[in-house]
Amino acid sequence: MTGVRHGRRTLAGMSENTIGNNQDLNNVTVLGTGVLGSQIVMQAAYAGKNVVAYDIGQEPLDKLPDRWEWMRGYYTTDVADYTPELFDAAIDRIRTSTDLTDAVSDADVVIEAVPENLGLKKKVWSQVGQAVPDHTILLTNSSSLRPSDFADATGHPGRFLALHFANLVWKYNTGEVMATPNTDHAVFDRTVAFAEEINLDAIPIRKEIPGYLLNSLLIPWLNAAAGLYVAEAANPADIDRDWKIATGAPTGPFEVFDTVGFNVSVNITRGNPDATEAEKAFSDLLQERGIDKGKAGLGDGVGFYEYDAEGEIVRPNPDWEIY
Amino acid sequence: MTGVRHGRRTLAGMSENTIGNNQDLNNVTVLGTGVLGSQIVMQAAYAGKNVVAYDIGQEPLDKLPDRWEWMRGYYTTDVADYTPELFDAAIDRIRTSTDLTDAVSDADVVIEAVPENLGLKKKVWSQVGQAVPDHTILLTNSSSLRPSDFADATGHPGRFLALHFANLVWKYNTGEVMATPNTDHAVFDRTVAFAEEINLDAIPIRKEIPGYLLNSLLIPWLNAAAGLYVAEAANPADIDRDWKIATGAPTGPFEVFDTVGFNVSVNITRGNPDATEAEKAFSDLLQERGIDKGKAGLGDGVGFYEYDAEGEIVRPNPDWEIY
Repeated sequence: MTGVRHGRRTLAGMSENTIGNNQDLNNVTVLGTGVLGSQIVMQAAYAGKNVVAYDIGQEPLDKLPDRWEWMRGYYTTDVADYTPELFDAAIDRIRTSTDLTDAVSDADVVIEAVPENLGLKKKVWSQVGQAVPDHTILLTNSSSLRPSDFADATGHPGRFLALHFANLVWKYNTGEVMATPNTDHAVFDRTVAFAEEINLDAIPIRKEIPGYLLNSLLIPWLNAAAGLYVAEAANPADIDRDWKIATGAPTGPFEVFDTVGFNVSVNITRGNPDATEAEKAFSDLLQERGIDKGKAGLGDGVGFYEYDAEGEIVRPNPDWEIY
Repeated sequence: MTGVRHGRRTLAGMSENTIGNNQDLNNVTVLGTGVLGSQIVMQAAYAGKNVVAYDIGQEPLDKLPDRWEWMRGYYTTDVADYTPELFDAAIDRIRTSTDLTDAVSDADVVIEAVPENLGLKKKVWSQVGQAVPDHTILLTNSSSLRPSDFADATGHPGRFLALHFANLVWKYNTGEVMATPNTDHAVFDRTVAFAEEINLDAIPIRKEIPGYLLNSLLIPWLNAAAGLYVAEAANPADIDRDWKIATGAPTGPFEVFDTVGFNVSVNITRGNPDATEAEKAFSDLLQERGIDKGKAGLGDGVGFYEYDAEGEIVRPNPDWEIY
């Protein structure tokens, strides 16, 4: 990885020599306007970028005004410099499009947040790669697919990499910037700077790691908690309490299971050919006691805990208590 | 584990029927007065128990007054109800002994905190088992040894179990109460109540789990962080930052490595026959860059980070930066 420190050099040696640290990146196109995509649109617009919000049909785009008002509530409490005027001005910087070529033709940065389906990603990126200018930086928010698995589909693997957002972007504002083996170093560095420009706390990851950093840490920790539960060591609330007191963390593993939702955990385990018997047994419990009964986490108001309307824990869910 | 809920029943059916939830446990003997043992002594004494502090020779016992004054500084800031008078009264409730039979002959509870050596544990518990009254609850603070491996040495496995303290007991006041397969349910429940009596937040663990709950969660999480480092994914400080922002936790994994000290991590990995190649490679780095150079964590003032005299992070240690 030598050379990374030299990202600020001039870029005369690059094949497409228009990308550098001093290049302005004012025009951002976000592909996909679902839960996270719409948050990314607002994150960039609130930071002053001109944003095109692309989706495959008009219906999701028509929902955006409602999403802005939902987000406005959070911005009011969570964003230190929030003012209604700044938020309205951000909305004014957003335009929508259902025409992919039109959406990306003037983009400095494209951020892809379409569903996690490899065929779909390849198809979208192939079209985008043919329509973008030579200088455009190509970013995927892909969580479970490896960026390098569809890097070639872009036609520009040197300027393709991952920028991974967390849900509730304005609050959990990590931006995991992850290179593929073919990402140009200067593009990587410019993306780190871009992430900061849109008010993310950029986390540079210079080797491609499935799960980025956060999930690479979270999943073994959650699996360990699952193992303790399957071994009937203790009640979930006691395991959480131990972790929180001993480490000072605000949440224990079973609270995290509730926050991410049981579906996500079950899908990760089912997609993992190396899952242990304990992990599979735990997934079966998540399915039977949670998903099948509509008690699959915070989104349902019930998971390992019961929640009130504000999402605060009321008490442990007795279904999961062993003792 | 049926029957646990019936711990409050009368205990006429027990072979030694003097242990119950209503029994007063006023006399506590702590075996071993090292770093943690001395903290346990004060924790019990400050809570109003009469405490005998036993050690094998006079020298460690002579150090106790200095240890109390060291602890007093922490109590002043960390313990909400601290007063000099209460602390002095606690000291007055402590007597010392180098005679094991004398030390335990009037004990309601014995808490063993001797070094983690199986032969030593067996020897001590065998002597204690012969000297204690019929009603005494026998507790080990053993961290890495399995309590059931020396339960029989006590001669009273039904009233033997683990009570596991964390370092800086007054602040990180978890008390992991862990049964062996032979621990009587009523003794378990009485120990949970005793832990609360000495101002611990009791964590009941009803199956014997190597590493209790906390280390069962910590070690996979730390190993995952080690794996990311060995894979050269990112700098330690970036991995920590990602975890902290995304989860709201006050410390990331590399800060925890520093807090526990590199020796502990290396010993755990070397003692684990199933350690992965990445875990072994990481241990070798901890040895070479840390232990061999006197930079093995917070105790040395340098580990993955450099610390000031107050133990606050000054900056990442450049020795560990990859990028």
